[in-house]
Amino acid sequence: MLIISNDEVRKLLTMKDCMEVLEEAYLERFHQRALSRPRSDLYAPMGEDSYYVFKSMEGVLPKRRVTALRINSDIIKWNRTPHGIRKDKQPLADGNWVGLIALFDMENGKMIAMLPDGVVQGFRVGATGGLAIKYMARQDARTMGLFGAGWQAETQVVSACAARALDYIKVYSPTRQKREEFSQRMSARVGIPVIAVDRPQDAAVGMDIVATTTNSITQVIRPEWISPGTHLSCVKHLELGEDVIAQADCIAVHSHSSVPENYIIGQGERCIYGQDPNEQGEHQASESGWESAVELHTLMGAGAGAGGRQNDGQISCFINNIGLGLQFAAVGALVHRLAREQGLGIQLPDSWFTEDVHP
Amino acid sequence: MLIISNDEVRKLLTMKDCMEVLEEAYLERFHQRALSRPRSDLYAPMGEDSYYVFKSMEGVLPKRRVTALRINSDIIKWNRTPHGIRKDKQPLADGNWVGLIALFDMENGKMIAMLPDGVVQGFRVGATGGLAIKYMARQDARTMGLFGAGWQAETQVVSACAARALDYIKVYSPTRQKREEFSQRMSARVGIPVIAVDRPQDAAVGMDIVATTTNSITQVIRPEWISPGTHLSCVKHLELGEDVIAQADCIAVHSHSSVPENYIIGQGERCIYGQDPNEQGEHQASESGWESAVELHTLMGAGAGAGGRQNDGQISCFINNIGLGLQFAAVGALVHRLAREQGLGIQLPDSWFTEDVHP
Repeated sequence: MLIISNDEVRKLLTMKDCMEVLEEAYLERFHQRALSRPRSDLYAPMGEDSYYVFKSMEGVLPKRRVTALRINSDIIKWNRTPHGIRKDKQPLADGNWVGLIALFDMENGKMIAMLPDGVVQGFRVGATGGLAIKYMARQDARTMGLFGAGWQAETQVVSACAARALDYIKVYSPTRQKREEFSQRMSARVGIPVIAVDRPQDAAVGMDIVATTTNSITQVIRPEWISPGTHLSCVKHLELGEDVIAQADCIAVHSHSSVPENYIIGQGERCIYGQDPNEQGEHQASESGWESAVELHTLMGAGAGAGGRQNDGQISCFINNIGLGLQFAAVGALVHRLAREQGLGIQLPDSWFTEDVHP
Repeated sequence: MLIISNDEVRKLLTMKDCMEVLEEAYLERFHQRALSRPRSDLYAPMGEDSYYVFKSMEGVLPKRRVTALRINSDIIKWNRTPHGIRKDKQPLADGNWVGLIALFDMENGKMIAMLPDGVVQGFRVGATGGLAIKYMARQDARTMGLFGAGWQAETQVVSACAARALDYIKVYSPTRQKREEFSQRMSARVGIPVIAVDRPQDAAVGMDIVATTTNSITQVIRPEWISPGTHLSCVKHLELGEDVIAQADCIAVHSHSSVPENYIIGQGERCIYGQDPNEQGEHQASESGWESAVELHTLMGAGAGAGGRQNDGQISCFINNIGLGLQFAAVGALVHRLAREQGLGIQLPDSWFTEDVHP
């Protein structure tokens, strides 16, 4: 059993490899040879808009012999800010958060690795956005506008550069210092200009790709900023907003299993689909019904005729509406293989995690 | 983060303590201050009646500040034997099985312990049967007949002795050697005669309590063997059979959330309730509708008037129809507390299981 750290994951993973293994996993999904369990979220009220939340999801990828379990054990607070309502995960574990991926070998059942989910999480969201660009954006897309300057923005920049030969990227985030630091850091990392802009519209108008990668759950762009031929991308549909999504000629979602199963203490033991204790419309059904748009893996397996871009004048839109356990199986299997090959990680005795007592 | 072994759990747990913490947890459940997520089972075909199966369930117990995740990573084979169809978990992890409990501290999110589930599993099933005896059997019950001589039979003997002052126990299991060894071992352990009998009816006729604790999924007793006033108990309702259950005047089940959520590779991504790939009626709805009988925790919280035994002539029946994550939270919290107090377990750095990257 290998304990792998975020630093080691950073050393091991490249966005290119990550996109490759995810592409393979999505094709396995297309052929019904892989599986994900929709995320379940358990909520226990802890007072003052605060909840203990335990999230879990799994992915099964027989081709790579791996099942992944991803868990998050969070104390979450809902905060009202000038920029909208934000869910904030409190870092109460000695100043840290608790998100873990456990990997299991499907041929013998063993837990083969445990690692924090943070870096993998960024990679898989970024890589998925990158694959959506690969399959949905115009072939000649050269520019990207980005909303947000956090970790999700970071991986989105890297994966967009892996999917298309971009000339430059513009980034907007409400805090000047944050966007300027992001600009410097990311320009150095991807080797093209990543330009911080002072007005949100400057990161949208005339851009070939517009990606929102914030943790806001209110709209951050306006429909009039989007031109024909643009590819839109978001990590939460509320960032784009219904009127922006309505402009798209073709839409793809990440998964139709888009609603976590919520269990809330005090509200019976039943599963409450699409409603968390501080529901802000995050999982309400849309007016336009974009939730039933084609899934990304279908575009990959069946081609653009299944609902993708038909010409360069269309606006395409990818809504990364929810994660899949399968992503953690695909990326986790890669991390584990590379860690073994390169001798990274801390090896713990397998016997600690198996038993001679029949379970 | 504490790694605890089955041997240490054996040293730490007593059936009496285990029944106490479970009783507390069931009362928390009654007051809607605790929560369990129904088990989800993911199936991946591995050829020849064999499946890789990943099971998970959780329990949230704020009173003890603990959330427990229980996972099983199994290669399961369905075998036909002279005594019926058996699901066999293959010990392919260096000859061992893989069942784990992870415990989380709800005030800071940390994973505080990981331990194999085998010994806890036995204790919680046994303790639950014992609590059902405490709340449902006649006060003057003095004898028990037992079917099965495996680990579930073992803990059932101990918990029955904790719930009632029994004079003797009779045990039947198809293999002579197994039942005789069980008889010797358990007589020594509980200090009353545990008598191996050669015919199944001898473990049922005239007994005050009749418990089936086998891994058979076909009926092991007959209705004419059961007398008025008996308390019946089973770990799978198929062991008792519909005609035996139909004789009961009062029935309690462990939980109404009795059907695991199955996800099966190749059968779409939807959840298939009550059907596993080799469905043998284990989760088919009963003709008598016993599934909707009162839940054990309701008898505890609301009293026997809620559906329990009304007089000594009645036949009562407890159907331990499915486990609850909550049991692992209650027993896990106890194991963790005792291990800390007694300095048992292997301490791993918390920092391996937290992260400074926002998840």
